[in-house]
Amino acid sequence: MSAKYVDVNTLKYMLYDVHKLEDLLPRERFQDHDKESLDMFLDSVKEFADRELFPYFKEMDEHPAYHKDGKVYVHDQVKKMMYQGGELGLISAPFDYKDGGMQIPLMTQTAAFYMLDAANNHLPGYAALTSGSAELIIHFGSKKLNETYVPNMLSGVWSGTMCLTEPQAGSSLSDILTKAIPTEEDHYKISGQKIFISGGDNDFTENIMHLVLARIEGAPKGTKGISLFVVPKNRPTTNGDLEFNDVTTVADFQKLGQRGYCTTHLGFGDADDCQGWLVGEPNKGLHYMFLMMNGARIAVGRGASAIACAAYYASLNYANERAQGRKLSSDGTKNLEEDQTLIINHPDVRRMLLHQKSVVEGSMSLVMLASKYYDLVETATSKEEKEKYHTLLEMVIPIVKTYPSEAGLQAVNNGVQVLGGYGFCTDFILQQYYRDIRIFSLYEGTTGIQSQDLLGRKVPMDNGKGLELLSQEVMKTIEAASAFSELQSHAQVLGTKLQLTQKVLGTLMPFAMKGDYERYLADATVFMEFLSLVLMSWTWLDIAMNAHQSMQDKASNFSNDFYESKIETMKYFYAYELPKTTGLAEILMNPETVTIKKDKEFID
Amino acid sequence: MSAKYVDVNTLKYMLYDVHKLEDLLPRERFQDHDKESLDMFLDSVKEFADRELFPYFKEMDEHPAYHKDGKVYVHDQVKKMMYQGGELGLISAPFDYKDGGMQIPLMTQTAAFYMLDAANNHLPGYAALTSGSAELIIHFGSKKLNETYVPNMLSGVWSGTMCLTEPQAGSSLSDILTKAIPTEEDHYKISGQKIFISGGDNDFTENIMHLVLARIEGAPKGTKGISLFVVPKNRPTTNGDLEFNDVTTVADFQKLGQRGYCTTHLGFGDADDCQGWLVGEPNKGLHYMFLMMNGARIAVGRGASAIACAAYYASLNYANERAQGRKLSSDGTKNLEEDQTLIINHPDVRRMLLHQKSVVEGSMSLVMLASKYYDLVETATSKEEKEKYHTLLEMVIPIVKTYPSEAGLQAVNNGVQVLGGYGFCTDFILQQYYRDIRIFSLYEGTTGIQSQDLLGRKVPMDNGKGLELLSQEVMKTIEAASAFSELQSHAQVLGTKLQLTQKVLGTLMPFAMKGDYERYLADATVFMEFLSLVLMSWTWLDIAMNAHQSMQDKASNFSNDFYESKIETMKYFYAYELPKTTGLAEILMNPETVTIKKDKEFID
Repeated sequence: MSAKYVDVNTLKYMLYDVHKLEDLLPRERFQDHDKESLDMFLDSVKEFADRELFPYFKEMDEHPAYHKDGKVYVHDQVKKMMYQGGELGLISAPFDYKDGGMQIPLMTQTAAFYMLDAANNHLPGYAALTSGSAELIIHFGSKKLNETYVPNMLSGVWSGTMCLTEPQAGSSLSDILTKAIPTEEDHYKISGQKIFISGGDNDFTENIMHLVLARIEGAPKGTKGISLFVVPKNRPTTNGDLEFNDVTTVADFQKLGQRGYCTTHLGFGDADDCQGWLVGEPNKGLHYMFLMMNGARIAVGRGASAIACAAYYASLNYANERAQGRKLSSDGTKNLEEDQTLIINHPDVRRMLLHQKSVVEGSMSLVMLASKYYDLVETATSKEEKEKYHTLLEMVIPIVKTYPSEAGLQAVNNGVQVLGGYGFCTDFILQQYYRDIRIFSLYEGTTGIQSQDLLGRKVPMDNGKGLELLSQEVMKTIEAASAFSELQSHAQVLGTKLQLTQKVLGTLMPFAMKGDYERYLADATVFMEFLSLVLMSWTWLDIAMNAHQSMQDKASNFSNDFYESKIETMKYFYAYELPKTTGLAEILMNPETVTIKKDKEFID
Repeated sequence: MSAKYVDVNTLKYMLYDVHKLEDLLPRERFQDHDKESLDMFLDSVKEFADRELFPYFKEMDEHPAYHKDGKVYVHDQVKKMMYQGGELGLISAPFDYKDGGMQIPLMTQTAAFYMLDAANNHLPGYAALTSGSAELIIHFGSKKLNETYVPNMLSGVWSGTMCLTEPQAGSSLSDILTKAIPTEEDHYKISGQKIFISGGDNDFTENIMHLVLARIEGAPKGTKGISLFVVPKNRPTTNGDLEFNDVTTVADFQKLGQRGYCTTHLGFGDADDCQGWLVGEPNKGLHYMFLMMNGARIAVGRGASAIACAAYYASLNYANERAQGRKLSSDGTKNLEEDQTLIINHPDVRRMLLHQKSVVEGSMSLVMLASKYYDLVETATSKEEKEKYHTLLEMVIPIVKTYPSEAGLQAVNNGVQVLGGYGFCTDFILQQYYRDIRIFSLYEGTTGIQSQDLLGRKVPMDNGKGLELLSQEVMKTIEAASAFSELQSHAQVLGTKLQLTQKVLGTLMPFAMKGDYERYLADATVFMEFLSLVLMSWTWLDIAMNAHQSMQDKASNFSNDFYESKIETMKYFYAYELPKTTGLAEILMNPETVTIKKDKEFID
């Protein structure tokens, strides 16, 4: 039996009990599914993860993907995962039936990929990017593009990538330079360089579809002049063969972590023979790409939470096996006649484990919540409903991407610490999680970018509509939780934190009003941390309330011990994490502007 | 010219301006030294670090020390560093003249090793451990042991280690099992296993002195029955040759970081032929070892601060070269006609750089302060003076070991983030610092152990004498700083934080009084974080006050820009770090006892 890396019960508890997936199933899109069929899908994915992903986790780190003579070589398991995952429906499950999908809720797909990410985060990206790029072609591409490329992608025979970043323009997509020149035929000639392309090359699929952002000659400057193209590594010829499309792998990036997941530098049109096909209309490329971005950002949060989850179980397992030290007696001494105690019995170790558990399960819940909003938008039956959940989704996205990445790293760091010196040794797996998770606060918009998005775009949008709607949702939970005497004090504290949020914004907003956006946004990252803790406390209150309700109802899904463990973890979060907001609010309301550059540079 | 990894001006500013090393030089022990001669020593060490350490930093990571056929192979540069470092006096500089030393202040030695650690933290440990084990022999060993072993150690021809940890007893030294059996001759027969032995074997020195904690047959249980032995890898024979002393290298530990610094598993007496010589008296081994421990813990804090320092300059360099994004104009848009701006101009990047600078320079100052207390103890001319500075030293040691390790990791993490995706790539050096620094919160007593030491031993010692003395020192700075109008508000805030400290302890102490030590110490690590921020704010106030004074005096040591950069960094610390204490105090005063195990295990 493989070591525990995820708790399927907790995952299902979040899906069904906390976030009530079954309420969505009567909707037309999902009507062929019921809990039983979705659980069968999840169980088969878990079994797949146990068998094909987890056993190769350490080995893929020790034998990273590498670049040689213009080709990238990946671990054999990538091929197996893509082909078998394609068969399982992993690449296409949430798509429409007509596009080869199973129309499963994103919530279920998120749970499935959570298990894959926790089992081996070096593998699922190959499938997820193929799924994302197929989705772009399906939604916005012509019928011909669809017929030519999509079926082989959904089966995992061909793979896909997203090509955004260029050397001179990291997070600044306005500055993209890759060129597309129209031809007499149906394609454009593409030329340019793309870096940091995940899954950008491999030695097993016969073809790779690159979804490339480029600028058509004469297009407007900035983000308004960016178009989206399908640029296959090998282009299909009229007789059904494939011929090389002048997409070269210039180099790869060797990395701190996720070493089995290749990252490449691609050259397009070095020999002036690279063809690309426009997806949708010209100059709308970034718009299309951003319609996919919410899903991509949920996926990043999911991945970070899942890595922290696997690290938690690895350190919990150690804490339950390792004996060291003794309990202090009431005179402050230790009885040396006693055997040493398991380290899980030391409060400091328990604190570190509870930190991990609270971050892991709370962020798992946030990721599920975002997926639920996504499903509600997709299946909304009225304009109002669609708008409401779209607004809520937009509001939580930057947090769902960022909190698991940042707090997840702290959680993994605590996991390393639980192992003591062994945590630093390569014979133990914690150090790999510590390396792997580091990329998540950089992926898909860094923490800084997400924080600007949260405070600069999401908070002010529609005159504060998003935060208002979100506060209403929080208030609903506060009211419902207040019905449980054990939760009243927690509910009340959360209420004061909502008020504190208003106070903080009351200090910051005037800067935006008078056009001093630099000052308004200077501490956006601190605000991100602040609001994340408030929302995490909300989701933990919700989790604890559901646990109380289930025990009260004598609901038989899980044991009382299971429910009590959720309630205790909520208490940890309210005792050790939420109070940090007091200090963060002080920072946010501090009039000092030391991070804004003045006349002279003093950072030396 | 090699890249900048440390600012020698800042180091000298801390030594001479902030911590007033020159006040110590008239003392008898140091009377042959003056600022000029000490600076010459420091400059020669910097030149040595530039030439022999920094250039090999990345290469030693990429080609780690390794174990093969019972031997450990280290990078060639280890030998060069030991021999040349020995010649430079690096191993012996703070020792007495009579023991082959230079009687330099520990403050100067700390500054010297700070530069070495910042240049390449994989190398100085070999010299530092040799120095530490030589010191044990010098102080507590017989004349014969001294004559036999010390000279070759100080020249770097032989190396030394400290052997404490055993597989069944990590941080719990009470449970050490290594055995020492008396013989008819002057030695004992040693048998046992030691793990995590840094610098435990190499392929270049002709001999290695292991300072081994072991239990003489029939000794009392626990820490009171532990003795200290010199156990050479090869024992000198009567005719002056060396013969193998049955110390075998069982294995090495491959690690996340510090990969050039070997970590070994040693077996003593596998063939029943391992001889050890008692150092000092029986059963006093741990006492001797702990007399060295303050120096060792200052060294760990120094190393962590130095790594964060090198990481800071690497990320600052990047931020000053990388252009990306544009400033927002007053209508919230960007002008695409403008060139992209250097990322150092973005407030969020400045925040991350200032965090790094404040942690690095503040912790450098704390490390210097501890070294100064050490020097004051060593050279005290009265019992009162000795006691006072010994108490202050004891008080700050756990913080000086822990804060640089914990906050240093956060600083390096910010350094990685400043580089964006490049921070995650092995072509850039930040990811190596991120790995290397992770060991420091585990070395020489984990953060948990240090925190128990702080709250469990140091705070209550002599009825709270330590904290009282320390508070008096803080108050002196507050009073002096209040003379500068620009610092009055900061001084006042620090005063309120001292009061908050008393309030926190007022909540915790009653648990200790009634013998509930488990509850008293449950949040020791949170208290550590709290008190560290208070002490860091103290040292930053001191730094800023000195800067103001120097500008006022028109002191010509450094430029006004230099002083202003220190003052601005202090402001950052007071605006962004010190306020965190408010939330931490809330946590510490929270009545919840969720981390103390009750009847049932709920961490699952």
